[in-house]
Amino acid sequence: MQRNDLLLRQSAWMQEVENSPVVLSNRIRLARNLENIPFPHVLTAEGAWQAEDVLAAALQKIEIEGDRLTYLALNSLPPLEVKVLLEKHLISLDLANAKRPRGVALTQDHRLAVMVNEEDHVRIQVLMPGDRLTESFRQASLVDDALEAEVDFCFREAQGYLTACPTNVGTGMRASVMVHLPAMVMTNQVQQVLGTLTQLGLTVRGLFGEGSQALGNIFQLSNQITLGKSEEDIITHLQAVTRQMVEIEMTARENMRQQASLMLEDKIWRARGILQNARRLSSEEMMHFLSMDRLGTDMGMIPGTGTSFTAMLINSHPGCLQYVLDKELEPEQRDEERSRIIRAAMSEKRGD
Amino acid sequence: MQRNDLLLRQSAWMQEVENSPVVLSNRIRLARNLENIPFPHVLTAEGAWQAEDVLAAALQKIEIEGDRLTYLALNSLPPLEVKVLLEKHLISLDLANAKRPRGVALTQDHRLAVMVNEEDHVRIQVLMPGDRLTESFRQASLVDDALEAEVDFCFREAQGYLTACPTNVGTGMRASVMVHLPAMVMTNQVQQVLGTLTQLGLTVRGLFGEGSQALGNIFQLSNQITLGKSEEDIITHLQAVTRQMVEIEMTARENMRQQASLMLEDKIWRARGILQNARRLSSEEMMHFLSMDRLGTDMGMIPGTGTSFTAMLINSHPGCLQYVLDKELEPEQRDEERSRIIRAAMSEKRGD
Repeated sequence: MQRNDLLLRQSAWMQEVENSPVVLSNRIRLARNLENIPFPHVLTAEGAWQAEDVLAAALQKIEIEGDRLTYLALNSLPPLEVKVLLEKHLISLDLANAKRPRGVALTQDHRLAVMVNEEDHVRIQVLMPGDRLTESFRQASLVDDALEAEVDFCFREAQGYLTACPTNVGTGMRASVMVHLPAMVMTNQVQQVLGTLTQLGLTVRGLFGEGSQALGNIFQLSNQITLGKSEEDIITHLQAVTRQMVEIEMTARENMRQQASLMLEDKIWRARGILQNARRLSSEEMMHFLSMDRLGTDMGMIPGTGTSFTAMLINSHPGCLQYVLDKELEPEQRDEERSRIIRAAMSEKRGD
Repeated sequence: MQRNDLLLRQSAWMQEVENSPVVLSNRIRLARNLENIPFPHVLTAEGAWQAEDVLAAALQKIEIEGDRLTYLALNSLPPLEVKVLLEKHLISLDLANAKRPRGVALTQDHRLAVMVNEEDHVRIQVLMPGDRLTESFRQASLVDDALEAEVDFCFREAQGYLTACPTNVGTGMRASVMVHLPAMVMTNQVQQVLGTLTQLGLTVRGLFGEGSQALGNIFQLSNQITLGKSEEDIITHLQAVTRQMVEIEMTARENMRQQASLMLEDKIWRARGILQNARRLSSEEMMHFLSMDRLGTDMGMIPGTGTSFTAMLINSHPGCLQYVLDKELEPEQRDEERSRIIRAAMSEKRGD
């Protein structure tokens, strides 16, 4: 199998960030559409090809901090590569599953990914580790501007950017953070707390987006409303709510340390023991134990392993696993190879 | 707490024996009664005191390979010491719970234990590691002879030795082996195979005797019939059946290695990971994981730790644990201390 180096690279958003025990990563996504061309889901195949051509050409001119975009046409990619892009959060499930002409432009560090012919013609996405939404928005805006210099976006003074789905009209912006809330889950607070976020105009999803379960105690929080608020307001609001979530999670961790220290230590050390010793690990189990291990490292209850939590979570998913190992694997073999990779990672000496 | 050195000593029967992956230990027990004195359960308190006096005096004259018996009067022992004797298999549950004058005489290595005023006046017990029933019987007979030189035993030409319970009349001998049958349990063969042993005149029990569960996949096989067969025949028969059990267990292990190697390896390494990492361990869990770990060591799937399986099983039971640590412990503290002891033992380098 000829593999694409671009897909094998480590994604910048999976790096560990100092002093960010809860917020793993953040994302800004801007939805844009070409003027005078129907939205992708009502576009003819020919129209879609044309839109893709125009956008691919424009995108490949763009660079961010010297890192130039590379365009991947999904229709000519092997299915496994599409799966890798999806698992690494570089494309959406909708784009992965679509049959129409479509693609994604990526920087080498995967910080920037621009989807073409998703629900909208253009979806600019900036993914960064930790809680750096303002910086991510700044970079997304640079790309937005650079692209607007090449093509015409559908913009109306009254509404703002027009989008295929009315929930995106206006700024076309979705800001989101990925948070790790193991203590809130363990103390049964998470349902109730996250339930209130809808009333605050936020949406909560699992690690793999809409409808996905909160595996590994990871949740994505994002703004629901895109219209009638400025991008800055949306970001400020999300950051404020995120800070609250961090506070509740940190309080829950300290409460557990004081009231159920032995239970917690036991869970954490057993998780480490299983990660370091298991000879087969399902995705679900791995995510659960990695979450416990990360919690223990964050709380100083167990020495760190110097590996990135997010990178381990993502890279041991079926697509990434097979792509990195360069072989097709049956589910049982995947569990075996996954355990091998995790064992190796968890036995590394701490790198700092 | 003033502790008794004799109780703190390692029991010889818990030593690891080379090339005995299934048979952990063996035991010979001879039931004897004094002539012209009622059996203990119908004896007056005064009569029981007298019997104890006579037997304690006689027993303290006996030595085996230079190791002289020490007599412990159970009625004046602290309850925790009685519990330790019980857990170490040096006295029976019946003797531990009785209120009448009673006791046990022990050698320093615990190989020999003679109970006084159990169901019978005298119960001579020799406990040895591995499958050495013939040698155990030889030693038990030496003690039997030495004791008979001091006191008169109740013996009739027609029936042999008379005992309180008719199931012991004749030789008064019970021979037993303690076997570790994890593969038979894992492959669901154990119920059926052990079920047939009754028809062969054998009794099957768990680690802690009658009615106890087969925790840690450990079973005790012993002869049911004591009358009309010579001691040698009883031993030969038990040894033949034991060899069959060993064969079935070893075949089950090899089948698992061939057909479910990954499942097995995974279970074994996880057990090791949990033993080395848990911060609290119940007795039941510990026995299960130690059983898996021992299976893995026996099968060469995991490096040995140089510690004795049986010693770890026994010494981390509540009584032994509190006695060794010299403090009273609540159940939760026991689970914590148990995990500490097991972690330390499992991290030792292999000693050979």
